[in-house]
Amino acid sequence: MILAVDVGGTKMAAALVTPQGEVRSVRRATTPRDAPAETLWKTLADLIEPLEEGVEGVGVGCGGPMTWPDGVVSPLNIPGWRGFPLGARLGERFPGAPVRVHNDAICLAVAEHWRGAGQGLANMLGMVVSTGVGGGLVLGGRLINGGTGNAGHIGHVIVEPDGPVCGCGGRGCLEAVARGPALTEWALSQGWRPGAATRPYGGAEPYPSTRSDGGAEPYVEDREVTGRALAADARAGDAVALAAMRRAGRALGLAIASATHLCDLDLVTIGGGLSQSGEVLFGPLEETLRGHARMDFARRLTVRPAALGQEAGLVGAAALILAGERYWT
Amino acid sequence: MILAVDVGGTKMAAALVTPQGEVRSVRRATTPRDAPAETLWKTLADLIEPLEEGVEGVGVGCGGPMTWPDGVVSPLNIPGWRGFPLGARLGERFPGAPVRVHNDAICLAVAEHWRGAGQGLANMLGMVVSTGVGGGLVLGGRLINGGTGNAGHIGHVIVEPDGPVCGCGGRGCLEAVARGPALTEWALSQGWRPGAATRPYGGAEPYPSTRSDGGAEPYVEDREVTGRALAADARAGDAVALAAMRRAGRALGLAIASATHLCDLDLVTIGGGLSQSGEVLFGPLEETLRGHARMDFARRLTVRPAALGQEAGLVGAAALILAGERYWT
Repeated sequence: MILAVDVGGTKMAAALVTPQGEVRSVRRATTPRDAPAETLWKTLADLIEPLEEGVEGVGVGCGGPMTWPDGVVSPLNIPGWRGFPLGARLGERFPGAPVRVHNDAICLAVAEHWRGAGQGLANMLGMVVSTGVGGGLVLGGRLINGGTGNAGHIGHVIVEPDGPVCGCGGRGCLEAVARGPALTEWALSQGWRPGAATRPYGGAEPYPSTRSDGGAEPYVEDREVTGRALAADARAGDAVALAAMRRAGRALGLAIASATHLCDLDLVTIGGGLSQSGEVLFGPLEETLRGHARMDFARRLTVRPAALGQEAGLVGAAALILAGERYWT
Repeated sequence: MILAVDVGGTKMAAALVTPQGEVRSVRRATTPRDAPAETLWKTLADLIEPLEEGVEGVGVGCGGPMTWPDGVVSPLNIPGWRGFPLGARLGERFPGAPVRVHNDAICLAVAEHWRGAGQGLANMLGMVVSTGVGGGLVLGGRLINGGTGNAGHIGHVIVEPDGPVCGCGGRGCLEAVARGPALTEWALSQGWRPGAATRPYGGAEPYPSTRSDGGAEPYVEDREVTGRALAADARAGDAVALAAMRRAGRALGLAIASATHLCDLDLVTIGGGLSQSGEVLFGPLEETLRGHARMDFARRLTVRPAALGQEAGLVGAAALILAGERYWT
């Protein structure tokens, strides 16, 4: 059995995975994200302890950045683990077993290629569109790592050269435009309020302020400001929410057009929260993609929602061991 | 000995190449570009005839598009060879010897990786910036073909989403902005005339019309309207020529930033006529690249002019045979 581990800023998960990729005995814990390094480690150690017997290898997906292939991680959302030697610590716990740590977005792409929408295809980009925008690249049937294990960063392909500043310090990256929080922020700035489309007087008008000081700052209704709420309002016909989803779809279409011209892809899969948005996102995405990806060879590309659910990260982590000849060099 | 062949819209070249990559007995002929298929073939056959004895394999670089790996070519600039079975025809001529045909831009990238600026590096993009903008991608030490042999088309990465229409039918591709003819056309539209910077009254003013009909169409001096002339004027300080080179450098910097974020590159080489422009091109390129390629892993990327000269295409074609384990799948 292979032990698969998925470390994120919100949750940690661990499971046993069969050679066929079946996930068994999943255990989850909340990540104590602001805790010191050893507390974080103890949370993970407690999580995997009941699964340890007979483990023949350990595959790990973890938020980036990290030094690869060493598995020294510095997940953006887990400040206590700056430069934490996750691979080495797991190696001490499983002497003799291979331990392989890769970026969580890479693991999701690997999972889609190994057991999801990309099975049997040789050239795919697996994307995640959520709080951030990430991805992994499989070309010629093998995971592409690039020089430092960072190939697949589709979120930092540039889609608006003079566009918004990105978290990376650049400008106009796909992630700066299409990450969930960027979308909701843009929509709020245009007058969207969550639940807009179901309000009796429509969504385009900002709510009147109910602040006690009567100030001009826009009032935000007590519904969650999330990409999911935005997508729901778009599907219900709210004009600003629709424009926000078009904005995201266009940015995704541009980045995918660039990626397929550069890498000659068969398939792009899109997972993550925003990929659940349906036609309000995928319609504009396809329109932009088909308008820009005009080389003959680019026309065969299909873009599909990721096929695997919330266990995808564990499946991909396990594949680093179970199908290492394709996914680990 | 390996027979290497390089087929372009202007010239055909053939040579023998030693296992070490030394090019011997180069022969060149002008491509009869508007001739019918069999005339084109006879030109090539006459070119290679004196080199045929003892040939153990044939590597060919040819203008795209083509069906790969079959070697059925349809070079854009050679209308008589639409769907011409170049690989099969060479195969008949060299029974028993392997014949491998790939895109000419791919061969240039392969040459730079095998014997040029990219030797010893695992992850590089070899670019050609000339009448068109092309490239080839080497990742993990191996040529990346993509699903149809078309990986490396950096010229169709999008750098201005609402920019000029591209020959591919898309919009705002790198090639649409930075190919030589696009640059000179843009510069002419802004008032540049070749030789501007060396004219006594400076370059920004258009020449007065000397047409006999006194028409308003801009007069173009009898110097060649070429990227080379534009670069020379830029180096001499002409403001419009400098702006044109900045425009090209910026577009190149954006595309390279996107490519290195997606593929985690060590090196980009730039060959082709425009790569001779020097600082007027590479300065703005570097500035844009460093402004946009801000992920930590992207900072190690270096961009260098291609190291090999006009025999690079032959070297790369030979490498398809001589180092097939890396450059041919």
